[in-house]
Amino acid sequence: MKTCKVIFAPSSKEVIVNEGSSILDAARTANVYIDSHCSGKGTCGKCKVRVIEGNVNPVTLNEIKFINESDRELGFRLACMTMVDSDLTVFLPGENIIKAKTADKLFSKRTDVNNPAVKSYYVELVSGKDDHSRSYLDEMKKYLYERYGLKDLDCDINALQSLVHTMKEGKGNATVFIWMDKEIISLRPGQDEKSLGLALDIGTTTVALYLCDLQNGEVISSGSVTNPQVLFGTDIMSRINFSVDHPAVGIKKMQTELIRSVNAIVNRMTEDNGVSNQQILDMTVVGNTVMHHIFLGIAPDHLGLWPFSPSVQESVNVKAREFGIRINPAAYVHVLPVEAGFVGADNVGVLLSETPYNQEEMSLTIDLGTNGEIVLGNKDTLLSCSCATGPALEGAHIVSGMRASAGAIEKVSIDPETFEVDYKVIGADDPNIENGDVIKPIGICGSGIIDTVAHFFKTGLIGESGAFNQNIKTPRLRKGHSGVMEFVLAWKDETATGNDIVLSQKDVRQIQLAKGALHGGCRILMSRLNITSIKKMVIAGAFGMHIDKENALTIGLFPWCEPENIIMAGNSAGHGAYLALVNIEKRNEADRIAKDVIHIELALEKEFQTQFMKALSIPYEP
Amino acid sequence: MKTCKVIFAPSSKEVIVNEGSSILDAARTANVYIDSHCSGKGTCGKCKVRVIEGNVNPVTLNEIKFINESDRELGFRLACMTMVDSDLTVFLPGENIIKAKTADKLFSKRTDVNNPAVKSYYVELVSGKDDHSRSYLDEMKKYLYERYGLKDLDCDINALQSLVHTMKEGKGNATVFIWMDKEIISLRPGQDEKSLGLALDIGTTTVALYLCDLQNGEVISSGSVTNPQVLFGTDIMSRINFSVDHPAVGIKKMQTELIRSVNAIVNRMTEDNGVSNQQILDMTVVGNTVMHHIFLGIAPDHLGLWPFSPSVQESVNVKAREFGIRINPAAYVHVLPVEAGFVGADNVGVLLSETPYNQEEMSLTIDLGTNGEIVLGNKDTLLSCSCATGPALEGAHIVSGMRASAGAIEKVSIDPETFEVDYKVIGADDPNIENGDVIKPIGICGSGIIDTVAHFFKTGLIGESGAFNQNIKTPRLRKGHSGVMEFVLAWKDETATGNDIVLSQKDVRQIQLAKGALHGGCRILMSRLNITSIKKMVIAGAFGMHIDKENALTIGLFPWCEPENIIMAGNSAGHGAYLALVNIEKRNEADRIAKDVIHIELALEKEFQTQFMKALSIPYEP
Repeated sequence: MKTCKVIFAPSSKEVIVNEGSSILDAARTANVYIDSHCSGKGTCGKCKVRVIEGNVNPVTLNEIKFINESDRELGFRLACMTMVDSDLTVFLPGENIIKAKTADKLFSKRTDVNNPAVKSYYVELVSGKDDHSRSYLDEMKKYLYERYGLKDLDCDINALQSLVHTMKEGKGNATVFIWMDKEIISLRPGQDEKSLGLALDIGTTTVALYLCDLQNGEVISSGSVTNPQVLFGTDIMSRINFSVDHPAVGIKKMQTELIRSVNAIVNRMTEDNGVSNQQILDMTVVGNTVMHHIFLGIAPDHLGLWPFSPSVQESVNVKAREFGIRINPAAYVHVLPVEAGFVGADNVGVLLSETPYNQEEMSLTIDLGTNGEIVLGNKDTLLSCSCATGPALEGAHIVSGMRASAGAIEKVSIDPETFEVDYKVIGADDPNIENGDVIKPIGICGSGIIDTVAHFFKTGLIGESGAFNQNIKTPRLRKGHSGVMEFVLAWKDETATGNDIVLSQKDVRQIQLAKGALHGGCRILMSRLNITSIKKMVIAGAFGMHIDKENALTIGLFPWCEPENIIMAGNSAGHGAYLALVNIEKRNEADRIAKDVIHIELALEKEFQTQFMKALSIPYEP
Repeated sequence: MKTCKVIFAPSSKEVIVNEGSSILDAARTANVYIDSHCSGKGTCGKCKVRVIEGNVNPVTLNEIKFINESDRELGFRLACMTMVDSDLTVFLPGENIIKAKTADKLFSKRTDVNNPAVKSYYVELVSGKDDHSRSYLDEMKKYLYERYGLKDLDCDINALQSLVHTMKEGKGNATVFIWMDKEIISLRPGQDEKSLGLALDIGTTTVALYLCDLQNGEVISSGSVTNPQVLFGTDIMSRINFSVDHPAVGIKKMQTELIRSVNAIVNRMTEDNGVSNQQILDMTVVGNTVMHHIFLGIAPDHLGLWPFSPSVQESVNVKAREFGIRINPAAYVHVLPVEAGFVGADNVGVLLSETPYNQEEMSLTIDLGTNGEIVLGNKDTLLSCSCATGPALEGAHIVSGMRASAGAIEKVSIDPETFEVDYKVIGADDPNIENGDVIKPIGICGSGIIDTVAHFFKTGLIGESGAFNQNIKTPRLRKGHSGVMEFVLAWKDETATGNDIVLSQKDVRQIQLAKGALHGGCRILMSRLNITSIKKMVIAGAFGMHIDKENALTIGLFPWCEPENIIMAGNSAGHGAYLALVNIEKRNEADRIAKDVIHIELALEKEFQTQFMKALSIPYEP
């Protein structure tokens, strides 16, 4: 079979592939990131690339929908529909490259309890051993029992392998690290109690890691990186599809890429902080159910199908070495429990962080990510559900939509008289940007979209139904190419792409569908508990941090609540992972609440369609 | 650095090594087996090779001791003392190549109890799952509890990964394999209960494997191979030294080689029997303490030093995948407990097989391997000790000595009148040998040596002291090159090597030392229990199978016992591993007896020197 070389500009990454491979596959092989929402089916139009040199198959029907004639003449194609026929040079338009983001999800320490799973015990044996008829392990166990009351201890095979050598090096003195007072997992000669832990939050889009000191619970360092699984699709359904389409190998590939990324952050964090990865003796993990399954190497295929049940609900402990995670190989990785197929360990993390199950007061907790997870209740009852908000709130499936990264319009206001637009672009205040440089917008991200729709409503550009008021006269409100009404937020001479940035009637509908699902879900839970108003609300999720409360209330993204009672909690899921890392009581709490939370499957709720329809109205039709 | 190619004849194996490497190292790298008792120190003289072509360093002083001038002129060298200086062709004399032996240690099935650690349970769920709010794992656990009463089950991560897929493939029906009624380790769609197990006996010289059907306890196949660690030295002390001399890497290398060999036999056995290695769901392991440690990846360095204590005494369960053993990766490997530093899991296997701890009658059990392990007692008390018999009984440290393989003289008788010798050579009755071909002897192995010394005594060639009677006139009794008396067993025209096969005065002394230690050890245990005569004796070990009881009694290899009460049990250690494989009760028994057996450290026994001296006499000085 003929092979061809594909060069990706501007990175100049090269790869050799078989003739007939798609450019998208070539990019995956080359580790070049290309957005692909539909997982290579040619239906999302996101994987636009420009073929600069070389031969490919003729333009397909799918592509004609997404690429206009002038762009086609320039060589623009969908990477998934374009097959390599000779050596190629392919250019990636900037907005399609998902850049690795630097740590931006750090939370402050919010616990005083320090009760980690791995504790250290100091052992002093006379010259390593005082009894010839006893094994070294028995000798150590005897000491641990007599001095610390620990009994029935297991010993990890790696720890066992190092036992005698360590004892001799320490002349009988050693620091023994014991997991859950059950298993010896590591030994060091002499007295050296330094122990570290990792909390991992696997988001659909971003993987965040927190490196903590297990002795005092302090967060030493945090890091995050784009979840490399975006190579296989940007939302959870496309990850599921990738697994379905590539039986056995798909899941392996996604798990491997994920763990490789985790290892890369761990390496960077340990180097930066002058610590050793061997000192990392514990780890906790949260993520939505699909991420949870992929991390555990469980193909998530069934999560996309009725009854949407997870393979495993309870927490799972697995040795770091099983998955090749480069921390101490004997360390356990504690994967927090999931609640149900669409309410995952990330939501359990949110609950651990916000503890509604300990509160008298009723509260509504919304985790805004690619999916929306809602929990309503207090110490007596907790209900949860998952809403198929879709990725619109994150900028996907929106004409000019993009993720909340450099170049995205994140804040918008529209003058009610002139309909002129004021906006703020992510990166504009980045201190790394040289003076005088202007960050031109590339597109609009979720918080900007919510602002825009709210201002559409406030200025009368749209009414309750969400339809544009065509009586308003401004050049910004116009009929677009495809005959759909659209509003121009930034004219092409202001943008980095040379195209107008718009929000169309279709986009407004997408936002209505998303908020209809989210708001409708909240109403179902409220009606189950006979509650008509919300006194306290917690918005979790990094995305939530950036939205404007008032504008969100204006469009009715969620039920009304006094803005001062709405708490923007940030990455609560990651914070929950951290709490479970530094305090084992939190693990017990997690196992208990994951089971106790009553999960409402919205698809089975007759009332949901009604609530959904009412919530499509802006802000909400009571 | 210059590299050189070394070709080994007759196998024609090639290897590229750095200039200055020893030929022994080159052979190890090339996976060519060369005997080396001293682990490359130039002191045992066993690693003789012939340099056919190329440049090497000049002959060293060490080599002059072992290689006479005419041989030196032919290019004979010690592989460990000879450094590669150019491309080389090196010839390996036949007797130095340890050939992989075919399965010859099979025992017949000797148990009716079938109670394996892994049992299968059939599960029938309505279309895989009947409740959307429960995880698939919970669904299965619920069924296993309600139908079979199993509770608090863990689930191996590999089993968990396959759970949903398997359930769907079987349309809700699956066979679940559960270890110790504690952990789900494997699942198969539908009803398929076939499960296999492996019993592994790691001898210093030979690795034996038994493949069993766990459902009925039958041995399906057995295989054995030379322990590849002989690359690093032939006895346990040289393995320990190899580990000491190569910190961290030495143990890793020995463990890796061992497991590679185990995998090779497993592959052969599964292919030959049309089964899959995924069906192998359990494994038990015995071996002396050094082999036990190496298998577990524990550097055995400390086993060579006071207080000779093992790292771990109790049985160890470890997942097959931890060590890369190619059976079902979720299967546990159960490594039987050891008794003490020199009485290992192999002796525990012998006890499981012979069960002296269940007998009224007092018996003496001797496991004759490279070390001699002795157990004396009955259901009330069991004493054990280890005797440093040394490898002389296996043909090492004997001028014409060799292992019990093709070409070895295994049976000897000497005419009391003429002093003419009658002998039998291993392989002479091999049906693969073509008619008319004569197997010429290469050397003499342990059973032949015992026969020879016994006949020396019976014919008056030696007296009680073991010294040759120089008054006997026969051309076979002569003064050898180095001035030491020797007896010619086979003249050079009868042998394959073209050299006389002799047993020298020094060799007789070696046998006296070996049997002095063994017999002396027996006497210590007898005196501890106030026993003066042995009513029942069990000789375990493959080597024991071939020795002539009467001749062994003649030289006083062990205390007197009526020959009909001496049982030659064969590979009892391997049989014990098999019993523990098919019956978990045997594992409990093993853990109990390994702890209960009272281990006598002969080096600490004041009386031992006296007994040892008495036992040097032939047969024994009462």
